Amino acid sequence: MAQKPSIPKGTRDFNPSEIAKRNYIFDTIKKNFQTYGFQPIETPSFENSDTLLGKYGEEGDRLIFKILNSGDFLRKVDDATYTDKNSNSIAPKITEKALRYDLTVPFARYVVMHQNELDFPFKRYQIQPVWRADRPQKGRFREFFQCDADVVGSDSLLQEVELVQLYDAVFSDLKLEGATIKMNNRKILAGIAEVIGAKDLLIDFTVALDKLDKIGEDGVKKEMLAKGITEKAIEKASPLFLPQGSNNEQLERLDGLLKDSEEGKKGLDELRFILETISALGLQSAELSIDVTLARGLNYYTGAIFEVAAPEGVKMGSIGGGGRYDDLTGIFGLKNVSGVGISFGLDRIYLVLEELDLFPEAIDRSLQVLCVNFGEKEAMAALKLVTQLRKAGIKADMYPSSAKMQKQMKYANNRNVPYVILIGEQELSNNSFVVKNMNEGSQLEYSLNNVGAFIDYLS
Amino acid sequence: MAQKPSIPKGTRDFNPSEIAKRNYIFDTIKKNFQTYGFQPIETPSFENSDTLLGKYGEEGDRLIFKILNSGDFLRKVDDATYTDKNSNSIAPKITEKALRYDLTVPFARYVVMHQNELDFPFKRYQIQPVWRADRPQKGRFREFFQCDADVVGSDSLLQEVELVQLYDAVFSDLKLEGATIKMNNRKILAGIAEVIGAKDLLIDFTVALDKLDKIGEDGVKKEMLAKGITEKAIEKASPLFLPQGSNNEQLERLDGLLKDSEEGKKGLDELRFILETISALGLQSAELSIDVTLARGLNYYTGAIFEVAAPEGVKMGSIGGGGRYDDLTGIFGLKNVSGVGISFGLDRIYLVLEELDLFPEAIDRSLQVLCVNFGEKEAMAALKLVTQLRKAGIKADMYPSSAKMQKQMKYANNRNVPYVILIGEQELSNNSFVVKNMNEGSQLEYSLNNVGAFIDYLS
Repeated sequence: MAQKPSIPKGTRDFNPSEIAKRNYIFDTIKKNFQTYGFQPIETPSFENSDTLLGKYGEEGDRLIFKILNSGDFLRKVDDATYTDKNSNSIAPKITEKALRYDLTVPFARYVVMHQNELDFPFKRYQIQPVWRADRPQKGRFREFFQCDADVVGSDSLLQEVELVQLYDAVFSDLKLEGATIKMNNRKILAGIAEVIGAKDLLIDFTVALDKLDKIGEDGVKKEMLAKGITEKAIEKASPLFLPQGSNNEQLERLDGLLKDSEEGKKGLDELRFILETISALGLQSAELSIDVTLARGLNYYTGAIFEVAAPEGVKMGSIGGGGRYDDLTGIFGLKNVSGVGISFGLDRIYLVLEELDLFPEAIDRSLQVLCVNFGEKEAMAALKLVTQLRKAGIKADMYPSSAKMQKQMKYANNRNVPYVILIGEQELSNNSFVVKNMNEGSQLEYSLNNVGAFIDYLS
Repeated sequence: MAQKPSIPKGTRDFNPSEIAKRNYIFDTIKKNFQTYGFQPIETPSFENSDTLLGKYGEEGDRLIFKILNSGDFLRKVDDATYTDKNSNSIAPKITEKALRYDLTVPFARYVVMHQNELDFPFKRYQIQPVWRADRPQKGRFREFFQCDADVVGSDSLLQEVELVQLYDAVFSDLKLEGATIKMNNRKILAGIAEVIGAKDLLIDFTVALDKLDKIGEDGVKKEMLAKGITEKAIEKASPLFLPQGSNNEQLERLDGLLKDSEEGKKGLDELRFILETISALGLQSAELSIDVTLARGLNYYTGAIFEVAAPEGVKMGSIGGGGRYDDLTGIFGLKNVSGVGISFGLDRIYLVLEELDLFPEAIDRSLQVLCVNFGEKEAMAALKLVTQLRKAGIKADMYPSSAKMQKQMKYANNRNVPYVILIGEQELSNNSFVVKNMNEGSQLEYSLNNVGAFIDYLS
């Protein structure tokens, strides 16, 4: 019985046109990663379970896909454990490997394992799929590509500057003008929590603040109160709820707010250095903007925090994010390696480019020339011609059988071929070929002895 | 406690230099796939288990990596089954997905699922990793890339011709001259089994014959006898054991041997057509050669069978293989779709290019220019310069801190940078920069107002 085939939920097949568009984004990002001195690495799709588990919190552990041990996997389960029939206690006995959940932990593992071969600062990029057993929904998949650039082994703020430039370079190359690179700093958030007297509630404070654009000022304040932050503390933090204003207005406001916090002032200095350096260097098309509500994975970041918003008018979550972390490799035994990195959200960038119609024209053209097949003898001449065209790097093909002209032309149309070549009986006796321009309908005749003329015409 | 990190056996980390070399091979193959009119598709890393299981034989099923269901996976195991504690009967109840074992079955699934969107003949290529729970050994991995091109929906022998040309084009572009494309045909093997009276023992006959270069004539004959092929039958097959000789000599021999088998003669006609057409078109650097002992996955192929041997002198198994199959999509309910395809063995091609020193020089150069960092003010000028170079597509970087000159130069050396740029106090006051050619030791000075001159020099 034949099965009616399907694919697992949350996964996708990509057709040639989608791949052409995805590769356009990947290639643009890669080119810029490389001009910025980043080098590619790749890590295995699955890691030992203990490399991944415990690194993403409890929720993360649940979302990691585990690979069943091969062979008689139950052999390793002792009878006492088995009898309990508890999935949580049996899982670690029957699985030893798990699919990559992100690129950051494998990168940390890589740096520690290969530390003696690396030249620090080590600038790596990595573009590979990751897997999460998340509930699939619009725009959220169980398999998707991540696209990361990180520098480890340098605490220079010039790395942050460079990453802002890199975002600008990529989005400018993609013609996605008007992206906003939002920037914050963990030390500023910690400083605010300190000066308002909510130091111990830093996470609750920032989680609430992060929701400002979603639930508004009243909502944020309500949540803060519920978490035990006092009215007085919230009152002190009131400058955060003012309309954002320019970067300079915000800096001024933060200067006032943070004057009594060493940590806060340090964060402010960092922010100011990055802003001033970027201002001196200039950006091509993006804008760098302070956003004090930005928190992202606060437990993770220790300095700068970045997030990129699509141009105004496009409804889409962040299309990139990143920041400075001070102890990525500590979990694997290598202390004091500071790092900073950013990532690009491929699927969302794809949707934005699609919405704004920014993919180059004919990006998915897979065939430039198709030769019609008129029968054995003619096909032989066409095949010779096609061989020459291919050798010159032209995407060329011949229809494989001498089907009806109508059928062959339909195929040419479906594949959106701009030039169809005809070598019929008459052309064969003339030692020539006719090129039909499918857009204009016009025809040109070339000699089979001078294929170069047609190649020149194409290029 | 910090873990000492490792990766699962049979998997690999790839460093920047290895990736540069792998991409050189991938890019060369892709470019040719595209000029031959093939289009890329990608399928999910995991498929529903029932898409994969039962498609690769019992051994194959064992080698497929199964993904444990998320959450309380034991819930679906009824108590009776659970009590038996039998891995084989419990596995299907706790796993629903499995990692891709090859690209062929997912491709068949893709063609059937998307048949209404495809234009036939559909020429697809696919370059993605696959996973097998094989015992790892030298050159055999649990995660490796496959690299396939297939045409489905055309039974024209011109497809076989084109695939031979494609092999030749790729290996010629890789400068891997002298590859031998060995060709056989399932119908010829069936015809021989028929005429020697061993029709029912076709598989045993060909499996034994396939070992000729490993165990020699005596070994093959012994195995055939053991499998129940009569001495008389083996005697009839004796022309197969003669020294191979030229293609024409082999064709002549096969003409004699197969004169009483319709199927055999049909296979011989196909072989002859492909040879003659290729001979008329010419190959760049590879050779096409009949090899009647070639069987590969005989159950799978129905017509032509291909295998590529590395140039003489290189000890390496086949670096490519493929053939014609007549019912790939039948298992998923779409009958009568003939296909033919080839694959490239990336890991082996890599080893061959490495052994013959055929990778382009400086292929793994990740940085063209490094600016030394002399301190805050100078760094700012250097950063402006680096920004200009990057915008021009040059891989450029500045050392992120004003570390000791020696340390920065060591970094430049380790990254094999050909040009180091110096902007010290003096250069800054001259508004100039000095370029040190690291190979020759020579130095040149340019104006910071005329970076274009240096860019021109580099390109």
